[in-house]
Amino acid sequence: MILQGKRSWVFPKPPVIIATGTVAGPEEGEGPLASEFDLVHPDLEMGQPTWEKAERLMLEQATDIALQHAGLKKEQLSFYIGGDLMNQIISNTFAARTLGTPFLGVFGACSTSMESLAIASLIVGAGAGNYAMAGTSSHNCTVEKQFRYPTEYGSQKPPTAQFTVTGAGASIVAKEGKGPVVTAATIGKVMDLGIKDPFNMGAAMTPAAVDTIQGHLQDTGREPGYYDLIVTGDLASVGHPLANEMLRRNGVQMEQTKFLDCALMIFDVEKQKVQAGASGCACSAIVTYGHLLKRIQKGELRRILVVATGALHSPLTYQQGESIPCIAHAVAIESPNPAH
Amino acid sequence: MILQGKRSWVFPKPPVIIATGTVAGPEEGEGPLASEFDLVHPDLEMGQPTWEKAERLMLEQATDIALQHAGLKKEQLSFYIGGDLMNQIISNTFAARTLGTPFLGVFGACSTSMESLAIASLIVGAGAGNYAMAGTSSHNCTVEKQFRYPTEYGSQKPPTAQFTVTGAGASIVAKEGKGPVVTAATIGKVMDLGIKDPFNMGAAMTPAAVDTIQGHLQDTGREPGYYDLIVTGDLASVGHPLANEMLRRNGVQMEQTKFLDCALMIFDVEKQKVQAGASGCACSAIVTYGHLLKRIQKGELRRILVVATGALHSPLTYQQGESIPCIAHAVAIESPNPAH
Repeated sequence: MILQGKRSWVFPKPPVIIATGTVAGPEEGEGPLASEFDLVHPDLEMGQPTWEKAERLMLEQATDIALQHAGLKKEQLSFYIGGDLMNQIISNTFAARTLGTPFLGVFGACSTSMESLAIASLIVGAGAGNYAMAGTSSHNCTVEKQFRYPTEYGSQKPPTAQFTVTGAGASIVAKEGKGPVVTAATIGKVMDLGIKDPFNMGAAMTPAAVDTIQGHLQDTGREPGYYDLIVTGDLASVGHPLANEMLRRNGVQMEQTKFLDCALMIFDVEKQKVQAGASGCACSAIVTYGHLLKRIQKGELRRILVVATGALHSPLTYQQGESIPCIAHAVAIESPNPAH
Repeated sequence: MILQGKRSWVFPKPPVIIATGTVAGPEEGEGPLASEFDLVHPDLEMGQPTWEKAERLMLEQATDIALQHAGLKKEQLSFYIGGDLMNQIISNTFAARTLGTPFLGVFGACSTSMESLAIASLIVGAGAGNYAMAGTSSHNCTVEKQFRYPTEYGSQKPPTAQFTVTGAGASIVAKEGKGPVVTAATIGKVMDLGIKDPFNMGAAMTPAAVDTIQGHLQDTGREPGYYDLIVTGDLASVGHPLANEMLRRNGVQMEQTKFLDCALMIFDVEKQKVQAGASGCACSAIVTYGHLLKRIQKGELRRILVVATGALHSPLTYQQGESIPCIAHAVAIESPNPAH
């Protein structure tokens, strides 16, 4: 029985993340984690005729790099599970076409990083696949034009807005091998507290993050202290302190140094012009796959819980007066050597 | 080990589809399967201020009906897996908000019906959930304005075009109970033979359907004759004969009366103004959940393979000169009583 509690999967034989691939854009290449990524593009165009093709290129590069790191050919992958922010998840469908791998398309906005990793882990953990790849991507300019204003318009943004990460991340999960292991995953509920401001996604996503963290702790019987780090996806400087406060009120005490947010790690929020911090599918993907897994492998962290947050924002329903429904999916990743 | 062959899941203890819910629109209510659906709306507005809200209403009704049929409360569902054609799969995210169930958003265009059922079956088959619900929806007018032209424009269509089904379907999968069982599922690859005509989706999707059928037979060692019926999703009158021809050339002989297409079953293609036939996520969903499962329960069919086809068509990539990538996912559904 993999199900534990109401909505968590706990793996009796934890699947292994045997390899990752991370690609980043220029702004991310000037941030504090620049050296952690496998490939950094110096410009947003990346030699492509459109931004959409640039995003797809990054995702194809990330999947290629992950395959190289694993020493696998794409034919050896059982399944590729991926999604992104673009309508019809075009970056992923085209990357899946290139891979030629059986494909499960998913959509969880910026929570896609952990939704895809959770499903890949379930597939491998259940003996339903040998090697499962999870992937996601985002590009600042593809997202800007699709969700907000034409980029040429150069609209000004309030300080609560977030800056979409340009990048792509992929991971390969296997039954055995060397690497950090996935011990558990918790699937999020769609939460909506009525926030309608698409320039304040962090606040909108906060209840979903809090709900998933609490659900995870309840289902698994773990305390926050079980983890060396609990890291949310992209709540940024408005949402993350709110999450901390909501958890405190609900009786869940988080140690400040052990409760971080990918949106505040990938950029130097003080120096870089990113308003409240980062966002985008690639944010939690490349911070996790590029930075946090390396810290586990170095022995600096033993156990982390990545709580990827997603604002399921639609320009259409926004124009029709709806608020922004949000979701968060969590995956627990641990050192393969518990004594480490 | 659930994995069999390269990309199929075969369940040692087949999950049971204990209940379904189907909702249809007015055109479907005048088609040959009208009496098979749980609820038929007499108009496209359904008392809602927008077509998007009408689509969401149908999906909420379908999930409600499925829960009623199963005698379950929504709190008893472990997971809801769903997607639709709308950008950001809004029909499903809002329906999941109403359900309050842990949610996995998926996207496979019109293949979403079987993608969601395959994942729900995997979850239950792997002991990763007690009750998993799969759902999808489409609405003729929401799709028309998003993918083609404003509906008010009243654009004329070539005879190869297809008519999007207005409807919603949901199913509940459980470890045990009464109902047809899911014995296997085969996950599709993204196939693209270069077709760029968004008014000829059936032809575009044909190679994906053929590839998944052949992959399924190869992985499971089953012959086409194992099934009383192999039914594709929405290839319609252009794509379906093409699929038959491609299979024949590849050495797979299908009996004509045992190889059907949901797009040609839900409408009377001769009499109703639907061009080449139906399309849309709801097409294969309500034909399968409303019609085919009843035929299994009546003992008219013992084993069927539903091959839901999806054109992962994006207006944006189409405008950028790309062809239409397609995918097909197959689920094998059988009578719980093999001697039947």
